Amino acid sequence: MKIKHCDDLNTLVSLSKRRGFVFQSSEIYGGLASCWDYGPLGSLMKLNVKRAWWNAMTRRKDIVGIDAAILMHPMVWKASGHVDGFSDPLVDCKSCKTRFRADNTDSYINEKKCPNCGSKDLSEERNFNLMFKTHMGPLEDTGSVVYLRPETAQGHFVNFQNCQQSSRYKIPFGIAAIGKSFRNEITPGNFIFRTREFEQMEMQYFVKPGTDAEYFNQWKEIRMNFYTKYGIKKENIKFKDHDKLAHYAKAAVDVEYKFPMGYSELEGIHNRSDFDLSQHSKFSGKNLEYFDEANKEKYIPYVIETAVGCDRLFLAFLCDAYREEITADAEGKEDVRVVLGLHPEIAPYKVAILPLSKKEELSSIAEKLRDDLAMDFDVTYDEAQSIGKRYRRQDEAGTPFCVTVDFDTINDQAVTVRHRDTMVQERIAMSQLSSYIAGKLKSF
Amino acid sequence: MKIKHCDDLNTLVSLSKRRGFVFQSSEIYGGLASCWDYGPLGSLMKLNVKRAWWNAMTRRKDIVGIDAAILMHPMVWKASGHVDGFSDPLVDCKSCKTRFRADNTDSYINEKKCPNCGSKDLSEERNFNLMFKTHMGPLEDTGSVVYLRPETAQGHFVNFQNCQQSSRYKIPFGIAAIGKSFRNEITPGNFIFRTREFEQMEMQYFVKPGTDAEYFNQWKEIRMNFYTKYGIKKENIKFKDHDKLAHYAKAAVDVEYKFPMGYSELEGIHNRSDFDLSQHSKFSGKNLEYFDEANKEKYIPYVIETAVGCDRLFLAFLCDAYREEITADAEGKEDVRVVLGLHPEIAPYKVAILPLSKKEELSSIAEKLRDDLAMDFDVTYDEAQSIGKRYRRQDEAGTPFCVTVDFDTINDQAVTVRHRDTMVQERIAMSQLSSYIAGKLKSF
Repeated sequence: MKIKHCDDLNTLVSLSKRRGFVFQSSEIYGGLASCWDYGPLGSLMKLNVKRAWWNAMTRRKDIVGIDAAILMHPMVWKASGHVDGFSDPLVDCKSCKTRFRADNTDSYINEKKCPNCGSKDLSEERNFNLMFKTHMGPLEDTGSVVYLRPETAQGHFVNFQNCQQSSRYKIPFGIAAIGKSFRNEITPGNFIFRTREFEQMEMQYFVKPGTDAEYFNQWKEIRMNFYTKYGIKKENIKFKDHDKLAHYAKAAVDVEYKFPMGYSELEGIHNRSDFDLSQHSKFSGKNLEYFDEANKEKYIPYVIETAVGCDRLFLAFLCDAYREEITADAEGKEDVRVVLGLHPEIAPYKVAILPLSKKEELSSIAEKLRDDLAMDFDVTYDEAQSIGKRYRRQDEAGTPFCVTVDFDTINDQAVTVRHRDTMVQERIAMSQLSSYIAGKLKSF
Repeated sequence: MKIKHCDDLNTLVSLSKRRGFVFQSSEIYGGLASCWDYGPLGSLMKLNVKRAWWNAMTRRKDIVGIDAAILMHPMVWKASGHVDGFSDPLVDCKSCKTRFRADNTDSYINEKKCPNCGSKDLSEERNFNLMFKTHMGPLEDTGSVVYLRPETAQGHFVNFQNCQQSSRYKIPFGIAAIGKSFRNEITPGNFIFRTREFEQMEMQYFVKPGTDAEYFNQWKEIRMNFYTKYGIKKENIKFKDHDKLAHYAKAAVDVEYKFPMGYSELEGIHNRSDFDLSQHSKFSGKNLEYFDEANKEKYIPYVIETAVGCDRLFLAFLCDAYREEITADAEGKEDVRVVLGLHPEIAPYKVAILPLSKKEELSSIAEKLRDDLAMDFDVTYDEAQSIGKRYRRQDEAGTPFCVTVDFDTINDQAVTVRHRDTMVQERIAMSQLSSYIAGKLKSF
């Protein structure tokens, strides 16, 4: 058997649309650039990705969760540096009026000419802020400007004291959140890799100054273990140190995944020092120092940040799980089995119920079995076409267990469980099925 | 014992801040009007509310989920009627420049004068669109305007065919989604009841024309059962028929909850007829008819919609669960036990681990127990102050089970489980604790 892995994003774009993982936003209107909708399978899988991260964070003894609003007070973004510094350099072509990024358009960089029309009559570079801006309240004036957050982290900082006091946690402790963020990127692309609306999974870990380097290393290890636990192949993921540090960072490393377009960032792990809490202390006039009761000392905590793009991680899981198993029969005829070998916790459906025939004597059993299992798991049901075709459909959707209800089931009250990866089949009593599947999922 | 229920929202605002359910957004900057952040307890509880709704919908055999982007093609809102019709009437005071709603400001309605300064020099009524507007891409011109969605439903309509075809579902079937929505309300208020950023839980059920009245009634019943299943008291919830139907609606009913400020809408259930799919067919030029293979007929499906405000439901759960149990001791001294009698599935933490002392011989057992239970449940840990105070803290947080690790635990490997509502205590072997709690949660 030959195995072919995913070497082209278009394979996944097409699978995603056909099977209901990801659709282009507003597709019937020609689409909206760089926005995507998660379909029936994708919305389940995305929830699983978020749950895996959320539980890995908030079920620790030392991390609480929050869910802060997307809209925040505009001073937050002044304090964070986003109003003044979160921008890309843009250049206008005075001839064809095209606007383009000055820092990564090769034709411009090398030749100082418009990448669209070739004109050399270009404007000076101007900074273009990447935050989406809107107005709150009935008046559209400068006093009503609010921004769509470009990251969730500032919600953690402004809620630092509220979280610490209400939870009574002591340092070191962390705050974790998952939420939509927006960046008005000039050059979005690569499917759901770089989009203007995206979901961030961010955790800020507050530590005593001086212990920050140690925790930075701890979090590198914890985060890498997360990816391999959920099945990302070790050879496809690596750390990449930053060449240049952001203004707030004392140390920074990216976790990069080997996408079809090359290694690209999945997650950033940063030692943000006391930059953010100091800035918010200064701009809000509130003292955000922490009082360490044991040692009777006050300090502004340092922050170790881990920030993952949920949509990118979703894409990495798809890439990593995709395989084509190519076999040839006796006559040399090629057969291709497309499998999404997703970790069962990440797979959209855990179980597919497949009655061997549409006859009522089977479907009544199969539907009851579906309803019972759906108390505990996400379950799908498929009675169309041959059982072989249905197995293949579930392989492509990543469903780890197919359960076939056949005519023997009427007598032996048992079903056939077929495993996605090995295609091995087992006969299991229906009364044991739920605990059998729960056990398999736990042991994966 | 006397029971006092919640009769004032401020009781919940204060509990929410103190215990970490809900904080004012950007509080250190004086807050952002009508935006709220969910804290450590609130973020867990909100996830539970969303999961309860999501599972009730998507684990049915006939409903799929989606997760569509907040930003959509602007034509979507033209087709839906929001660009032209989604507005409130506003009036300007020419004297003090205050802008106010013309339709529910008593002082204005009765006397035609400014509610701020009393001037009668007022502008004509003007319609103010409630959609937040922003610009996508580098140019801020009319061609780049996009809106923050004011509801999730349009994502279901524009994805109707993608969902139907990828899932191979036949009518009747539904599409469910949970997501942030935004309305630039002139008069937000009542804590998290009416906010400018909020989360919607919406399901559109596509049916054959002619069967719509029947399904409308079915969904009324299904939705009311949902609320009572999760513990909302029957006497606090009711249906309210709409006096006036929206332009798209053939029938409409609200589910109202008796909040401290009076009966107010939790959920709307609407028969939207074929309005939305017809409009999107017309505006997109795509034929959105469904082909019914069994009967060889084509039609635009009718839609039964159920739309719940997640934040409102969160607030209703808090209101309904809140009680003060007031008792007097022998000397007549009053004692008040504040309890959030939340359904265990909705409660932020399922279990609190409380070691009777901070001594290492107990904390080592208690911490291991916490780690084991945290594989399956959201667990909290509290070792500060007397056990009585800690029980009360958990009562106020709605934690259904308190588990005390005491000095007998060292010998008998058992712990005391104390029940929130009855305060009954039981001795349970540690090895049985996880399955004991799982069983209790299932049987609730």
